[in-house]
Order: sequence, then structure tokens, then C-alpha cells
Amino acid sequence: MIGETNSPCARAGSPGDPLEELKALDREARLLEHSGAVLSWDQEVYMPPAAVEERADQLALLQSLAHQRDSSPRVGELLDLLQAESSLQEGVEGFFLREKRRSYERSCRVPERLVRDLAQTASRGQNAWVAARKANDYDQFKPWLERLIELNRELADHLGYRETPYDALLDQYEPYTSTAEVAEVFGTLKEGLIPLVQKIASRPLADHSFLRHSFPVEGQKQLSQEVMLALGYDLDQGRLDCSAHPFTTTLGSRDVRITTRFNEKLVESGLFSTIHETGHALYELGVGEDLAGTLLAEGTSLGIHESQSRMWENMIGRSRAFWSHWLPRMAEIFPDQLEGVSLERFYRGINRVEPSLIRVEADEVTYSLHVILRFELEQALISGDLPVDDLPGAWNQGMKELLGVVPRDYSSGVLQDVHWSMGAFGYFPTYALGNLYAAQFLKALERDLPALWEGIARGEYAPILGWLRQKVHRHGKCRSAGELVREITGGPLDSSVFLEYLWGKYDEEQGR
Amino acid sequence: MIGETNSPCARAGSPGDPLEELKALDREARLLEHSGAVLSWDQEVYMPPAAVEERADQLALLQSLAHQRDSSPRVGELLDLLQAESSLQEGVEGFFLREKRRSYERSCRVPERLVRDLAQTASRGQNAWVAARKANDYDQFKPWLERLIELNRELADHLGYRETPYDALLDQYEPYTSTAEVAEVFGTLKEGLIPLVQKIASRPLADHSFLRHSFPVEGQKQLSQEVMLALGYDLDQGRLDCSAHPFTTTLGSRDVRITTRFNEKLVESGLFSTIHETGHALYELGVGEDLAGTLLAEGTSLGIHESQSRMWENMIGRSRAFWSHWLPRMAEIFPDQLEGVSLERFYRGINRVEPSLIRVEADEVTYSLHVILRFELEQALISGDLPVDDLPGAWNQGMKELLGVVPRDYSSGVLQDVHWSMGAFGYFPTYALGNLYAAQFLKALERDLPALWEGIARGEYAPILGWLRQKVHRHGKCRSAGELVREITGGPLDSSVFLEYLWGKYDEEQGR
Repeated sequence: MIGETNSPCARAGSPGDPLEELKALDREARLLEHSGAVLSWDQEVYMPPAAVEERADQLALLQSLAHQRDSSPRVGELLDLLQAESSLQEGVEGFFLREKRRSYERSCRVPERLVRDLAQTASRGQNAWVAARKANDYDQFKPWLERLIELNRELADHLGYRETPYDALLDQYEPYTSTAEVAEVFGTLKEGLIPLVQKIASRPLADHSFLRHSFPVEGQKQLSQEVMLALGYDLDQGRLDCSAHPFTTTLGSRDVRITTRFNEKLVESGLFSTIHETGHALYELGVGEDLAGTLLAEGTSLGIHESQSRMWENMIGRSRAFWSHWLPRMAEIFPDQLEGVSLERFYRGINRVEPSLIRVEADEVTYSLHVILRFELEQALISGDLPVDDLPGAWNQGMKELLGVVPRDYSSGVLQDVHWSMGAFGYFPTYALGNLYAAQFLKALERDLPALWEGIARGEYAPILGWLRQKVHRHGKCRSAGELVREITGGPLDSSVFLEYLWGKYDEEQGR
Repeated sequence: MIGETNSPCARAGSPGDPLEELKALDREARLLEHSGAVLSWDQEVYMPPAAVEERADQLALLQSLAHQRDSSPRVGELLDLLQAESSLQEGVEGFFLREKRRSYERSCRVPERLVRDLAQTASRGQNAWVAARKANDYDQFKPWLERLIELNRELADHLGYRETPYDALLDQYEPYTSTAEVAEVFGTLKEGLIPLVQKIASRPLADHSFLRHSFPVEGQKQLSQEVMLALGYDLDQGRLDCSAHPFTTTLGSRDVRITTRFNEKLVESGLFSTIHETGHALYELGVGEDLAGTLLAEGTSLGIHESQSRMWENMIGRSRAFWSHWLPRMAEIFPDQLEGVSLERFYRGINRVEPSLIRVEADEVTYSLHVILRFELEQALISGDLPVDDLPGAWNQGMKELLGVVPRDYSSGVLQDVHWSMGAFGYFPTYALGNLYAAQFLKALERDLPALWEGIARGEYAPILGWLRQKVHRHGKCRSAGELVREITGGPLDSSVFLEYLWGKYDEEQGR
């Protein structure tokens, strides 16, 4: 910075105590990760286009420096030293050592060559996917997909697994959860969802024509900000900006930012994206102060993360109670567009269920079926049961069976998602797991806060946020997803609660 | 980032070739510096307030990792290895080795303890200064100033110097320039400026009442953007944002951003700050592609940097020719405020000379006298000739002699600048050196581009930018300030050209 002098600064200390040394190494890795998050956030939100090339090098360097600190042999030595001390195996320090051991062993198991190969193939695969999707040409993407599947099989072999290679891949995003467990709950989920979708399909579609009016972006921003702040998001510790795809990112333990996107013709999209990302941000900001700056200070799994965003977005944000409070305000901002739109009509419009081709545009009921399809297909791709040549056929067949619609082209079918092109297999299921966890948590929340919906109808969310902080957020990675759901509900992950919620909301004439 | 997978990445390679290894180490340090610049930029422009604590740790870590790469014993070994190869002593590689050696030796000479002590004292000293300035209480700041002077003396002893400890301090900001050289040109400068200031003071003050109207910020932004883009700043490689203090910062070789600040009641402040920072940014963006990503890819000294910003801001931006083009546009944006304001009246208003107390608000004529005062005082503080107790008196005495005005309090006197509180001694002179270099460059520019002022009057700046890139920018640190001025003008640093420029502009009835 011109006009200022640089103040050179000392390194984080690494004293003689092995626990302190391990914590210092972990702390440096987290500082590097957060620094990388600042660079990535800037890239998506404000970076000038010509900066893209050097930014990639900056990010690669920070990631590699963090990775060195997480996978250094010294970490292994320190962990072995500390294993002997029984006093350290409990409480926060016990969790710290558990997660540190887990992350260290995983990083040691994967050879650097494979890490590099995966990163490079994913980066080029993503470019190939963009081109293939644009050209609606599956064959263009096929060789990349084949290679990425091969590399993921190799990755699974190095990481190790109990029953199936897919276990190892799933475990990257949903730690301590097995394929068999997910397959079981998804099986029940599918059985419960298909008849519900069919039942809804037999009825006339809800009217949402009033949502297709033009809603100027300034007003949408205003409303989204008001809702986001009301839910408990604090602008002293975050920001709302716009980007091509909405996301939440942690730039520091007291700096968790969200982005959204506004489209004049899709008013509900920007608003519900904001609520969704607010849910993610509240989770990260709610992690206990005692975990700040350590690897424990983040969401415990992507499924639990998604439970937070989806509970706020769908279960609370698309409820009658919620809109009994916010519709009058929205009608103040958009008086012409919402003239004569009753609460009931609005509620039904934002909850319209319609089987469709694109996952990210799917409603709350059909969404999980899109995910189940991908979960089934990617297991078959990894096991080799499904050759890459047969994937488009299997995709279309699955869409027909699960949703009753069939894509006319690759771009709105098998080529619609970025995940596989990035080499991310095992990621998709976490989206639907989020729905299941959210429903289970909501049921516990209703049990603990009998006046829940009356509060929501008054626009009061502090009791909900307080409950979530107490039960979920503050624990960070000190509880696995499974431990969390057991602690809160007394039972395991279970799809019946989500199904009850959906049937209750969509089958009967009066939901919430 | 939630919703994306991390792609782990390989380290920058460090092959067997010592030059390649040295370049790779240098490249990593520059990537870390630029990453730090992203974090600092964000901190000044968009960071939420609660993030400040962890951000300091992130920045300290990145600085320390860059410093490790610049001062590692391996750098010394590689430099020694490469010294023997005569083929490497010329061209870009020769400059690279020269500057690498310089930076390595400087960093080795200063013990880590002192670096840390200086950084910590500066950080706390700055807080003490903020409080002292607010309370108008010099005594509160005195112990910090004493300690910072002591540490700077120690620093100078470690860095080494030819004639006076101040040489070593000055050399941090204006490399290869001696105190004696600066003292000599400042001596002539002072002799030439004082009578000019007195002569101007004997005439009535120019009217600038029309600049004190209210100019809405949106219009100021619009005008500043238009001017900045017209000068050749490219938004593909930069941004304009607002911050408490205007600055320019390099976040990547193709990412140089500027900030400014707008005040409804000070229309010229935001506009001329933008032009000033644009001058800095054009310099950094003009460094040759062959130097990109190395330690050679930045301004060669703060004095030369300041020559670029001040030439655009004052010599071009406050000329009649410049405003013969822009005043009509400005009057379109602000028709009421500028109604009936002639070019001549506007020109005289923005060039009003009036001895005043505050350096950063000083006009082009009196500005250098503020700097000369600081230069003289800080030499005396470092040598010990001036005890800290006597500084306020010496300050007021100097103001009286040089400018004929005396501060009524510490806050608008000795406590006005942040620099000493940050431990930055030797920095001030670069501001006035910038004026001298700018005038010398402008004279060469007039020689090489006879139609210079006609082009400026048409709003055409490409020939100027082309000339600056060719003569100054592309060289980065491959020329010292002294080498540059000799190459361009045939002579050494010299204050007479700046004095001619000022007398020509301010003494005669018709300037440009």
C-alpha cells in the first residue's frame, strides 16, 4: 500500500509444550485458509477480470501452505506424543486431537501426486464441462468424467473404507456417515416421496403468476436485508454482496459473509437464497468461542450445514406464519406487484410443487428426488456397474421413474451440475441429508419451544437462533452429524420426520 | 466456501537450477505480499468491524512467511552461487540479482528481535498518537516517540550507512539516495520557495467560494470515474472504491486498485485524490511484462511514485489546458454549482495558494515547505540534536520561518501526521522529491511531445501515458530514481526545474 509503511511481524510462537505446538500449527493452517477465503470471496465479488491468473497462483500457494501445516510429519509426532496423555482425551482437547488425527491421517494417506492430478484434472474438467454443457455435447465431457471417476476410485483406495469405495468419498463431505446408512434413509425417503409427488401432480398447479411480475432489484435488496437482519445475522460480523452464484464463506471467526443474486423477474429466488445463506452463516458464526481459530470451528458436516440453511429457507421461510409477518412489509415495498395478493395465495405460490428438470430450481418436495438420482448414479459410476457411456440413458430413465419428466437435451439433464466435473463424488447426498436433519431438528424445536410458530408469526426468531446455537452451532466439529442428531432427538438419522413434515404441509388443505 | 469443493494444489516448483530456485522463492514471497495486499484492501474498504482482530493475525502471518522467503539463508547461498556467473550480471537478470542481494542483505542485517520490537511499538505508538491527537496532548505521545526514535537509531546502526544514520532510514523509502543529496536540493528548494510564497501572500487570495457549494457525491463519483478512465486507468485491471484515506495498492500484477473519498463540501478533494491515486496506479500497471511477479515489478522509489501521482494531479490536473476540456463536462454534471464560473476563475480557484497549518491540505506551492520542515526535524531527532521535549517548539518555530503561520495547538501542529507514530522516519522527504522529479520529467515530456498541452486541452492523454510507460514505468526497479532522472533528463535530481515551473505558473499573470 502506497502511503503506508509495512510493519514486519513475528511468527506465531511454537513453545516447548507439544499441545501448544500442535495448536500453533493448526492455528497457522486456519489463518491461511481464512486468508484464502478472503481471496476467493474477492474473486467472486469484486476482483477485476485481468487479475484471475495471478489470483489462481495466490490461492494455490495459500492452500499448499495450509496443507503443509496440516500434513507435516511433525503433526504426526505431536499426535503420538499426546496420545499417551489420558488427561487430554476428554472435552474440547479430546475433540481437537480426534479431528486433528483424522485430518492428518487422511492427508497422509493420499499421495501428493494424486492430489495434484485430481486438482489439475478437475480444473480442466470443469472447463470441458462448461464447453460441453454449452454445446449440449456429452461426448465432449465423457473422457474427463471417465478420468475423474478413475482418480476418485484411486482416492477411495488410498483413503480406505469399510464396505464400498463410495464410503471414503462420502466421508469427505459427511464425516462418520456410511453409504449403507444413507442408502437406507434415502430408500424410505424415495418410497414416501414418489406417491406424494404423484398426488400433488394430480391436482391443479398453484398459481404463482404474481411472482413473475417485475420486482425492481433495489426493493428486493431492501427486503432481503431486513429479513436477514431480523433472523439474527449481524453486519458487524458479515456482509451481504452479490455474485453469480450465492454462497457463504468464512473469512475469520468473526467474519462470515454471504452473497446472493437478484433477478427482477424471479423475486423469490434472491430472497430465499439470502435466507438460505443466512442459515449457513448463522451456523458458522454460532460456533463456540472456545473453539475459535481451530479446526473445530466449523460446521461438522455439509449435511448439518444444509440442515441449517434449509430449515430457515424452507421450513421457516416458506411457512404461513413467516409470511403473515413479512407479506405486509413486502407489499409496502412492492405495492403494485402484490396488490390483492392474499396471504393464502402468496403462500401457495411460493410453495408450488412441480416436477421439473433442474435440481437447483426444484421445489422442497421434488428436490430430494433429484439428489437421490445422483446418489444412485454416482455409486454405480464409482463401482463400475454403470459405464460412462450409459450414464445419459440411466439419467433419463431415473428422471422418468422418480419425477415423471425426461430432459430433451444433455444440458438440462446429465450435464446440469458442476460437481462431477470438479471431481466431487459423494457431495450430492449432503443436500438431501440436510432436509432430513432439518426436519428432525424442527420437530425437537417444536417440542422445546411450544410457542414456536406464534413467535415466527410475530417476526421473532431469537428463541430459534438461541436454541440452534445451544443445540447445534456452538459444538462445531465436537459432534459428528450422527452424534448431534442423537443428542437432540434421541434417535438416529431418519427420513420419516421429513416425510411427515412434507405430507403435513402439502397433502392436507391446511398446512402451517 | 460452502457449495464448492476445495482443490488442493501443488507448490511452486523449485528445480535444480539455482536461478530458477531463487526466482521461485522470490515469486512465493511476492504472491504472499500480494495476498496480504488483498487482505489489507478488504480491511480498508469492505471488512466488517468485528473481523479486525483475526485479520491482524492473518496479515502478520502472511508478512512473516514472505519475510522468511526473502531472508532465508538459502537466498544467500543461491546469490553467492550466482555471483560467479558473469552471464547473469546484465539485463533483467542482473537487476534481479542486484535487488535480491540488496533486499536479502538488508533483511539479514536487522535482528528479528528489533523487527518485532519496532512493529509492536509502532502498532501501540499509533494508538497512542490517535489518543494524543484527539486530546491535543503531546506529553501522552512523547514516551512513544522517544522509544520509536531510539529503535530507529538502532535500526540505522544495523542497516549501516555512509555518513549519517538518517541515510539508512531514508534508503528504506528512497533507495540509493543520500541525506546530503536531499539536503542540498531541499536547501535550494527552500530558498526559491520562501520568496515565492511571500510574493503570492502579498497579493489578494484567489476566490474559491464556488468550490464550497454542495456537490452531491454521486456526481463527484461520476466525474472522477470519467477522468480516471480518460487518463488511461483500466477497470479490467483495477477498481475505484471509497475508504477513510485514499490509497493505491497492488493486489497482483494485473490488479492495482485505488480508493478515494468524497465530501459534498470539498468537491476538489475527491477529484484530485482520484487523479493522484490514478497516477500511482498507472505506474504500477505500467511495469514491463518481463518483470511481472518479481521483486522488480514495482515502483523504484517512493519519490518516483510520488512524481507520477503529482504530475497527473497538479501539473496536468490543475492546468488551464486540462480544465478547458473538463470544465464544460463538470458544469454539465453540476450546472447550478458552476453557473457563471469561467475557466479562468475555476483555474485560479483550484490553484489558490495560502500558507496553512496542515500538510495534507496544502497547495502545490507551500506543500514542499511542510515536507522540508519534517525532513529537518527528523534528522535532528535521529541525530539527537533535537530532544523530544523541544520538538513542539522547534515545529512552531519552523512553521513561522517557512510559512509564516503558527499552530495554536498540537493537533494541528506536531501531532498532525501518522508517520512518526508508525516508526517511519525518512519517509517524508519522498513527498517533496516527487515534486522535483515530476517537474524534471514534465520538462523532458514537453521537449519530446511539443504538442503536449494541445493534446491535454483535447482530453487526449495516451501520448503522455505512452511516454511515461516507455521512460519510467516499464523499468520497475531496474533503474534507481537517480538512474532514471539521469537517463531521462541527462542531469541529476535538481530543484531548479520545479522552482521554474512554480514561478512560471504562480508569478506571472498568465500561466498555462
